[in-house]
Amino acid sequence: MKIIDSKVVNKNRFVTVVAVTYEDQKGNRKQWHMVSRGNQPKCITGRIQRPDATIIVPYHQQKNKLVVIKEFRVPVGGYQYGFPAGLLNPGEELAAAAGRELHEETGLDLVRVYRHSPAIFSSAGITDETITMVFAEVSGAPGTHLNEDSEDIEVFMMDQTTVRELMQQEDIVFGARAWLVMDAFVRMGKTYLTGGETVM
Amino acid sequence: MKIIDSKVVNKNRFVTVVAVTYEDQKGNRKQWHMVSRGNQPKCITGRIQRPDATIIVPYHQQKNKLVVIKEFRVPVGGYQYGFPAGLLNPGEELAAAAGRELHEETGLDLVRVYRHSPAIFSSAGITDETITMVFAEVSGAPGTHLNEDSEDIEVFMMDQTTVRELMQQEDIVFGARAWLVMDAFVRMGKTYLTGGETVM
Repeated sequence: MKIIDSKVVNKNRFVTVVAVTYEDQKGNRKQWHMVSRGNQPKCITGRIQRPDATIIVPYHQQKNKLVVIKEFRVPVGGYQYGFPAGLLNPGEELAAAAGRELHEETGLDLVRVYRHSPAIFSSAGITDETITMVFAEVSGAPGTHLNEDSEDIEVFMMDQTTVRELMQQEDIVFGARAWLVMDAFVRMGKTYLTGGETVM
Repeated sequence: MKIIDSKVVNKNRFVTVVAVTYEDQKGNRKQWHMVSRGNQPKCITGRIQRPDATIIVPYHQQKNKLVVIKEFRVPVGGYQYGFPAGLLNPGEELAAAAGRELHEETGLDLVRVYRHSPAIFSSAGITDETITMVFAEVSGAPGTHLNEDSEDIEVFMMDQTTVRELMQQEDIVFGARAWLVMDAFVRMGKTYLTGGETVM
């Protein structure tokens, strides 16, 4: 398989649709439509080290709780349970972006990063968006007075039992990365959140 | 926050860009551009129970190994480590879709589902795509003769140590859901893969 070239077919502020021409295993030229956060897709630029966004998995050590948010998301058409997240600003370092988004969305402060993933692909069939998962210790009292007008967020501090009960509810919606983190937390407890560096 | 209506601004076979008009917390009308797998976004149809796609986390019990694939993905512009996955066909049941995609991509057979997630959102800022994670026992010998021309897949059987080593490599690319599963598997071992039903 080989990437030949790409063409922007539709562009909006945060969403660019790109038609990528590629050669399949038999040498046939085909097109793949995908969505990019930037002006050019990563399969052309080759810049896959820096993530587009970060998702913070916040562990409040003093309270011994996982911080979970319930946030209105337009594509969901309602509320989704997940974690604080957001796009990195140009030139912004990962930990700075994680601390900024955490503070804006929950009022909490980032104390230290336990571990983080590399830049990983959100859903590589449809988009070249990448994110970095940041497992971090946080402190402070939750508050949402820094939310923007288009942010509608509630902050919860949850122990293992509360997360287990949350996941058993059938009428609520989860983000995929958050569901996987919560499922592992329910099975392994707080060592999953605070466990040592394994990657990067 | 309130969804008002939506308009398709660009449509291709697997990717539809939709501009959703919504009211923010102060009553201001705004637009959110997002990508949908279907003709209408889920925030309008309200159909969020059925996932668009499934990701299978295959545990080969006889060999005591996790099955991992390395697959060429156009949006990555190269190979990504992850798990077998694919879109559900219209009317197709979840376990059937999981078994079919597993077999097409790896040659293996689905024996039973240990547990699965509900339909969870891939990345709710950019898309209403949902997936269901299926943790399953699989059997058989790996083979890729059923791959389509646009599929370029290598199948690996990995134990905990091999996955840990894989995750320490810096020059390879992971899918986000796969990275989270592998990270939890490295920390918890096979009970993470086979552990009892917690959700649905």
